[in-house]
Amino acid sequence: MKAHVYVMLKRTVLDPQGQTIHGALKKMRYQGVEDVRQGKYFQITLDSALDSAAATAEVERIAREVLTNPVIEEFTYRIES
Amino acid sequence: MKAHVYVMLKRTVLDPQGQTIHGALKKMRYQGVEDVRQGKYFQITLDSALDSAAATAEVERIAREVLTNPVIEEFTYRIES
Repeated sequence: MKAHVYVMLKRTVLDPQGQTIHGALKKMRYQGVEDVRQGKYFQITLDSALDSAAATAEVERIAREVLTNPVIEEFTYRIES
Repeated sequence: MKAHVYVMLKRTVLDPQGQTIHGALKKMRYQGVEDVRQGKYFQITLDSALDSAAATAEVERIAREVLTNPVIEEFTYRIES
């Protein structure tokens, strides 16, 4: 079983990395890009003995307590069986 | 229109960040985690005047040419209208 966790800076937090990439894309003449924001992506391989509810609970706990700084970041996750 | 680009180290490339997180999770007694790999995640907001084919082509080009180091990384993307 695999979990995908996406961590992004909150909308209200400035994202200098994303802005730098956006600026570079504009200079390189890529068309139609209005905004870029960068985040982190984690692939977590879970023990297949875990049932779906336990896996969801564990992944949510890991994302909340370890992978995300709640002051400036927010996360979403998806579990793939 | 929004594009989501996920960049990961290739399977064959060692991921020390992911290993460090995996080690930390084990020490912190999280259950059932077999592997962790870390990647990058980009949210690209596109000009809504682009049609779907143009957007796909542009995002694929940006991902291939700018966001990914093809020697050690691979990407996937998803476009949301």
